[in-house]
Amino acid sequence: MTEPALIRLARFVAEDPMTPDAKTLAILRQGVIDTLGCIHAGAGTEVAVKARKAVREMGALGHTPVIGTDMSASRPQAAFLNAIAGHALDFDDWEIPGNTHPTVVLLPALVAMADEATDGMALACAYLAGFEVIARLGEAMNFAHYDAGWHSTATLGATGAAAACARLLGLTASETTHAISFAISAASGFTCQFGSNAKPVQAGFAARAGVEAASLAQAGMTAQPHVLDHPRGQAALMGGLDPDRFDVAFSKLGRGYALTEYGLVLKPWPSCGYTHRIMTCALAMRDQVRPEKIARVDLHLPDFHAAILPFAQPADRNEALFSLPFVAAMGLLRGGLTLADLDAGVWSDPAVAGLIAKVRVHPFQPARPDQNYSEDDPDRMIVTFLDGTRIERTCDYPLGAPQSPMSEAQLLVKFEANTGPVTEAQAGKAVWAARLRNWPQEQSIRTLMTRQG
Amino acid sequence: MTEPALIRLARFVAEDPMTPDAKTLAILRQGVIDTLGCIHAGAGTEVAVKARKAVREMGALGHTPVIGTDMSASRPQAAFLNAIAGHALDFDDWEIPGNTHPTVVLLPALVAMADEATDGMALACAYLAGFEVIARLGEAMNFAHYDAGWHSTATLGATGAAAACARLLGLTASETTHAISFAISAASGFTCQFGSNAKPVQAGFAARAGVEAASLAQAGMTAQPHVLDHPRGQAALMGGLDPDRFDVAFSKLGRGYALTEYGLVLKPWPSCGYTHRIMTCALAMRDQVRPEKIARVDLHLPDFHAAILPFAQPADRNEALFSLPFVAAMGLLRGGLTLADLDAGVWSDPAVAGLIAKVRVHPFQPARPDQNYSEDDPDRMIVTFLDGTRIERTCDYPLGAPQSPMSEAQLLVKFEANTGPVTEAQAGKAVWAARLRNWPQEQSIRTLMTRQG
Repeated sequence: MTEPALIRLARFVAEDPMTPDAKTLAILRQGVIDTLGCIHAGAGTEVAVKARKAVREMGALGHTPVIGTDMSASRPQAAFLNAIAGHALDFDDWEIPGNTHPTVVLLPALVAMADEATDGMALACAYLAGFEVIARLGEAMNFAHYDAGWHSTATLGATGAAAACARLLGLTASETTHAISFAISAASGFTCQFGSNAKPVQAGFAARAGVEAASLAQAGMTAQPHVLDHPRGQAALMGGLDPDRFDVAFSKLGRGYALTEYGLVLKPWPSCGYTHRIMTCALAMRDQVRPEKIARVDLHLPDFHAAILPFAQPADRNEALFSLPFVAAMGLLRGGLTLADLDAGVWSDPAVAGLIAKVRVHPFQPARPDQNYSEDDPDRMIVTFLDGTRIERTCDYPLGAPQSPMSEAQLLVKFEANTGPVTEAQAGKAVWAARLRNWPQEQSIRTLMTRQG
Repeated sequence: MTEPALIRLARFVAEDPMTPDAKTLAILRQGVIDTLGCIHAGAGTEVAVKARKAVREMGALGHTPVIGTDMSASRPQAAFLNAIAGHALDFDDWEIPGNTHPTVVLLPALVAMADEATDGMALACAYLAGFEVIARLGEAMNFAHYDAGWHSTATLGATGAAAACARLLGLTASETTHAISFAISAASGFTCQFGSNAKPVQAGFAARAGVEAASLAQAGMTAQPHVLDHPRGQAALMGGLDPDRFDVAFSKLGRGYALTEYGLVLKPWPSCGYTHRIMTCALAMRDQVRPEKIARVDLHLPDFHAAILPFAQPADRNEALFSLPFVAAMGLLRGGLTLADLDAGVWSDPAVAGLIAKVRVHPFQPARPDQNYSEDDPDRMIVTFLDGTRIERTCDYPLGAPQSPMSEAQLLVKFEANTGPVTEAQAGKAVWAARLRNWPQEQSIRTLMTRQG
């Protein structure tokens, strides 16, 4: 009988020495800081406020801080609320092979599980283990899994969060197997929920599942190690079990980290990640474009990206995030898109709406449908002017991808926009932001992470 | 565009007057008392003790009582713990079309959601709504759903629990739609987890999901109404979406209750329900059988029941519950099976093991694979004696099924075995048990339900 895949995964999570090099640590450091910014910004959104109300009504208060608020909750519900806040604006990082938002699930789970004695390196190593699980499962199961309709941030995210929490708690390989198995039993979520509060809530469920699953295993409870690759287990029932893909993906365990290999895609703009290559094209041609001279704009992108961007002229904020013509127009007219633009309902501005009306979207069949981004399948933007001349740009990897990273300065601007400007009354916040820059060196990470800005 | 099925379901849950007749109320009354007994008995099992430890470690204490203990927890975690205890012994009721254990999910969710002012009839009506949802979804989705590998107690149970909690809270049809949609996002669970702690834990996740989903909707949060019957929604992704079956099942809403139509299958014996028809055969022939004269025992049953009963001579308690030869031997030798028998490891008794060795199991292809029990596909038991003579019995519906109900006296014996005998020091318990018999008339149901025996 073959060893269940889950046992192999758990052995890595529990026993790998976790020795990230400086480059890997830098990716990790930035992703965590960026997500903390997103949690702060998201804590004030309607969905986060209502979620806190629900948790209060459920009598689930406790001693674990809810970031950016005066509230504290039980560990699982704090993880739930911090993940909802972090994903509420769709401004948080994502990764390629699992097609998940990893940090917004892993970080809330880990912060909820941390105690006063947890130091920054312990949290970093636990994050690394959780990311590895998400990315290798992504290699094994995607895109069949995501394309079927499973929201991988919720499904693979729960599994990764359980692994991360198990590592943080120092569980054995056997206990880690049970932890991950319990998380798989709790892992669900549908992409057809997008466009409603259920999208961030599903991320919240995943973070909470990680905390709970690790706690159940820590208490000595057991689940079946075969639940991942059993013929009636998760991979088989959720989008196809391909033993060869599992073998290839899992053979990488312990031989370099997935975080080093793939990195994180950070978002410069608060819109769907699949709009970001076109935004990058728009910025590259902006100094050659006078908007009033534009006759038409043609956008070419892979069909599987176009499929989740169905909106032309947005009717509301949710639609704006998934409107490629809107994002292209913002790039050409204003050089970007900010939370303040969205708060102001900028899609209704006559100049923006006028340009949106000139945009046409052309989906194409990609050469590499198995890859999220590929140099064989760049996005392409063609602007045709009233005089018949045209300019064109293509983009393989958007600003924010590991191949084209945001600068430290750009990340700082984003962080400050998310947490609000430093005023004299908030001198402490500047100190906090400065300390946060080196968080893996911190001796008590929970205190630092949950400090209010 | 067709109205999403979920909206139809939610309208029923929120707006049906819920007027159960005496027969329906009697089913409900018995099922709840029986499950309370199972929760009391299960509260002392290892899985329940460890689950309570995990909840304490997660800092999820609160004000909602955990039945049969001194502990209280947050609403969602109390629901989780009570469901785990109630399902730990696999002794609780089940139902036919959804193939779920309904009460062990619905009751813990409702007791957690009830407050001091909730009366018995409110709880009864909420239960009725939850059962309706489980059974109609069972008609629409099973057995394709269960056979694929989904643990319907967890998946349909979560949906039903959300409906029940929404009804108890008095949510509108729109809010109820969102509540059920959130529960669907949280509903998972695999039959390949059976044989581990994950089976009762998955029931616990479902009860908790009901509490959470209703609370999120009550706080004003929204989810997609199409998540049930969207082409990439739950039914499509979890075992097949058949619009005709949905239409037939949902057209029954508001025209008589599923609980009246199907009833509950109560368990006289703490073993898999699929062993109970053979146990019923054994009891019917017992006064004609002298065990020492038996040459062989042949058991015939539908293949889809045999598939989840793989064990001959059990190695441990978990295997004993899913061993048809063991259950048959207990019926012939001892006239039944009790928790005390299991505690004593009776499968190792030489007389029991000797008879198990004489048993052969013969699965057959049923005429009605779409039905859990059918008069066209009875179980059959043939005992052949050393002198070559033989006797035979068949059973359509086991003792405990609505077609062959347990008597009030039998249920009382089971209840007392589960809660322990009344001693002088526990005079209050006898009063509690007597009051419990008429629980739908109670003015403050939470106090009554959670009182320690």
